[in-house]
Amino acid sequence: MATLHHSPFCPQSRFIRLVLAEMGMEPILVEERAWERRDAFLLLNPAGVTPVLVEQSGLAVPGAGIIAEYLDETRGLGLSGRRLLPDITADRVEVRRLLDWFLVKFDAEVTGYLVTEKINKRFMNSSDGGGPPDMNAIRAARINVRYHLKYIGYLMARRRWIAGDHLTYADLAAAAHLSCVDYLGDVPWEEDEIARDWYARVKSRPSFRALLADRVPGMAPAEHYADLDF
Amino acid sequence: MATLHHSPFCPQSRFIRLVLAEMGMEPILVEERAWERRDAFLLLNPAGVTPVLVEQSGLAVPGAGIIAEYLDETRGLGLSGRRLLPDITADRVEVRRLLDWFLVKFDAEVTGYLVTEKINKRFMNSSDGGGPPDMNAIRAARINVRYHLKYIGYLMARRRWIAGDHLTYADLAAAAHLSCVDYLGDVPWEEDEIARDWYARVKSRPSFRALLADRVPGMAPAEHYADLDF
Repeated sequence: MATLHHSPFCPQSRFIRLVLAEMGMEPILVEERAWERRDAFLLLNPAGVTPVLVEQSGLAVPGAGIIAEYLDETRGLGLSGRRLLPDITADRVEVRRLLDWFLVKFDAEVTGYLVTEKINKRFMNSSDGGGPPDMNAIRAARINVRYHLKYIGYLMARRRWIAGDHLTYADLAAAAHLSCVDYLGDVPWEEDEIARDWYARVKSRPSFRALLADRVPGMAPAEHYADLDF
Repeated sequence: MATLHHSPFCPQSRFIRLVLAEMGMEPILVEERAWERRDAFLLLNPAGVTPVLVEQSGLAVPGAGIIAEYLDETRGLGLSGRRLLPDITADRVEVRRLLDWFLVKFDAEVTGYLVTEKINKRFMNSSDGGGPPDMNAIRAARINVRYHLKYIGYLMARRRWIAGDHLTYADLAAAAHLSCVDYLGDVPWEEDEIARDWYARVKSRPSFRALLADRVPGMAPAEHYADLDF
């Protein structure tokens, strides 16, 4: 059985939890507070970030994008019609483009700010960067999330799923990131009905259930967070 | 013939130029000032960043990491022993880990700051964010580059190339990023002889020649920049 070193509100970890659930894998979950820089964890991933997937063989696969490629190479073909990275070259380019969009760009412009400022800082010592949230960072993220939501709406007005005709890594990465922002009540869903409908569809999948059950200690989610008919 | 939309001192573009040269491909080069957000360029890559590879068929492949995966899938097998993403699963994980390290982490901590502040801002209008360099950003990058250099030295004390026994994408990405920093004279080579020797080896490859000939208008490179025996 594989082990996933993750953090419940790390959006990159959530993405991999969704991927594993869609693939029918049930890893052992080990919670990691990346900012504590535990020695044994740094050996698994010198970059010091979650998630890291460790196979029963001992092979450590660090980082969400790298795990996604690894799982496609080792388990993708067995999924046939439900493969999350498509077979056709041009479709793979589009999935990877959007995967990068959410794992890197959305993270840098939205989720990184919000999760750090509103969640992680509550649990960090001041020597690790803990303390009150930086309101400028939160404001920037709230502005940025609006154009990303509009972009999802733009794509979904033209496609069945974010990267094309099928559910792919791109949907799971986008939904994983949005789920963190949604917990915090910072997604202006009323601004884009098409994006909201897409998210409701992904959120209704069985793979999403475990994510919706997670809670930040001492911080309730936005009212509609776990509501499938929000 | 393929076309590469690039910028001469965009480190991600330099990485792909090295990859294409190692693969024996000679693309048409189109220089792109990403901050001008040209409409036709945004159609090729909605994220608005270089590089973008456009195949003769019209297929646009945007972003350095995505292009690297695409080229491996479409041309990698033809390279046999000179393949830049190895055949073995665990080796692929290691190459992708380090590729991500340089394309995302090193970029966010070092190259992004230095290239934006010292080079791009000279050519941007003030409405695009042009103006004098932010010295705090430059100072942060100069501090950060030191531990990255040490990490390269650490790896190279144990391996023939950065990710293992063979030249891979990881070496080319690391060297592409360092080449931008080196142009600006901001790599403290004297702090790590092993890292310097590795860089001298990569820099001596024929694929590197075109990069070493590029100049920022009005800004000479550091004295040793194009010197293969620095």
